[in-house]
Amino acid sequence: MAFSGAGPKGQERRSDHRVQLQNPNLAKMKEDILYHLDLSTSTHDLPAMFGDVKFVCVGGSPSRMKAFILYVASELGLDHPGKEYPNICSGTDRYVMYKAGPVLSVSHGMGIPSTAILLHELLKLLHHARCSGVTVIRIGTSGGIGLEPGSVVITQQAVDACFKPEFEQIVLGKRVVRKPDLDAKLVQELVQCSADLNEFPTVVGNTMCTLDFYEGQGRLDGALCYYTEQEKKEYLQAAHAAGVRNIEMESTVLAAMCNACSVPVAVVCVTLLDRLQGDQISSSHEVLEEYQQRPQKLVSHFIKKRLAAA
Amino acid sequence: MAFSGAGPKGQERRSDHRVQLQNPNLAKMKEDILYHLDLSTSTHDLPAMFGDVKFVCVGGSPSRMKAFILYVASELGLDHPGKEYPNICSGTDRYVMYKAGPVLSVSHGMGIPSTAILLHELLKLLHHARCSGVTVIRIGTSGGIGLEPGSVVITQQAVDACFKPEFEQIVLGKRVVRKPDLDAKLVQELVQCSADLNEFPTVVGNTMCTLDFYEGQGRLDGALCYYTEQEKKEYLQAAHAAGVRNIEMESTVLAAMCNACSVPVAVVCVTLLDRLQGDQISSSHEVLEEYQQRPQKLVSHFIKKRLAAA
Repeated sequence: MAFSGAGPKGQERRSDHRVQLQNPNLAKMKEDILYHLDLSTSTHDLPAMFGDVKFVCVGGSPSRMKAFILYVASELGLDHPGKEYPNICSGTDRYVMYKAGPVLSVSHGMGIPSTAILLHELLKLLHHARCSGVTVIRIGTSGGIGLEPGSVVITQQAVDACFKPEFEQIVLGKRVVRKPDLDAKLVQELVQCSADLNEFPTVVGNTMCTLDFYEGQGRLDGALCYYTEQEKKEYLQAAHAAGVRNIEMESTVLAAMCNACSVPVAVVCVTLLDRLQGDQISSSHEVLEEYQQRPQKLVSHFIKKRLAAA
Repeated sequence: MAFSGAGPKGQERRSDHRVQLQNPNLAKMKEDILYHLDLSTSTHDLPAMFGDVKFVCVGGSPSRMKAFILYVASELGLDHPGKEYPNICSGTDRYVMYKAGPVLSVSHGMGIPSTAILLHELLKLLHHARCSGVTVIRIGTSGGIGLEPGSVVITQQAVDACFKPEFEQIVLGKRVVRKPDLDAKLVQELVQCSADLNEFPTVVGNTMCTLDFYEGQGRLDGALCYYTEQEKKEYLQAAHAAGVRNIEMESTVLAAMCNACSVPVAVVCVTLLDRLQGDQISSSHEVLEEYQQRPQKLVSHFIKKRLAAA
């Protein structure tokens, strides 16, 4: 089995909304082992397993992505007593993956590198499975800036730790910069979905993506901290002035890689605390659980609405 | 309960080999919530739980770190029928943590950011528990350069994707560079342990730490690839010429953070393939399993020898 990557057919493909991989080498490969998913084109019938996928929801926590598939299956009326959702990637402990009808729910771990590995293999999976019209949405957690905890932020623009709309990588020892843009139409649809629900505060804003949770986000409570509280405050206020409303660790790579493959992508994160008020996440387990259901509710409503309109 | 961080007593402490946190703010905190470990100074008696820890072994995969605690407990004669090793961090799905006598085995997920979060909270845990004389060792997997698959690499120097002995971070929007040095004495002890065992090839070399597994390591089989096979070869050959013998995604942050807190640290990774021969990890599950046991055997032998000499 051989695969066609990007090539002369790229333009035709774009019109049917296929995943546009940017790698001509894949067409020459007899087999593609998706190592961190424990799936392969020679051992799995990927079109049969995944060909009907239209919505790929990703998030850091394996248990949250399991909870999401149960929730969305119930909301879409796909659930019935005794129905089970086995982990499709049970042969590995790197990621988990669940499927219910047209929805795939996948964990990406914490941080850009873990998310990049998942995206390389997930985008190849969607391509090998000949999926079309796929939308990718991250449902995550984040720290807010100047927002009531529990607020949901729909990302307008992902930015780096210097507030620039850039995703920087080192490729073959050289600096490469890509645009971490989100899909503007998706943002508007998601805003409307939140208005439909009217259950929790939702804002549209920039999302800052960092490589660390402590020093990288100006926290005062890490093992290392060489700056003052005043310097931290100035940094977070500068972020706010640049339109940043929340901070997390995956949005830039997700946006840049989905963009490169012509897949519309959105980021919907709940804020667990207001970083202008503190650094530690000290709300009760129950409160944090309820907060984490908010992006799930919003995205589940979006999927229902899209399917009803199809 | 309040904690003393780095401060006037720093010099005294260094002599008894305590973990030297670099954050004066911690001394002012009434409680420290280690959020991603689901542990806290107010809900857990950390000195009672962890005060006797001398060896902290970390690795990416949760199941490998579980396998390691079972293996090391058996090797140290700590095991007995019916003995169980519960996951100390069972309240979260971000990391797993197991303990057997003086050995702690903890997963860090994949990549620098995930490992940084773990290290901030783990180093604080060791400090709050008043541990002394702790050694940290990563037992991981990697891609080799010019080595027979299954070879074990003990890291002499961790380097970045440009082969520089640097760990770069963005802190408050500014570039900060730290030295990712490993403990030279530990390297020699580990080399001797491998000679004692004489079971698998072991080399000492530089380890390149990247932010991505595909483009970031010059692979030709990712979802994105904009370079040629020839350019890839030249990059890997340049890495080899710079002393790089394997590539992974965590060594620089591990070295830099442990150094900052005066904790001796080593990195011992097995190579799953030779990157000069290919990109896909295509060995059988059984072969890969056996490879992954090699760093565990080596480090377990090291721990036994250290304890026997104490």
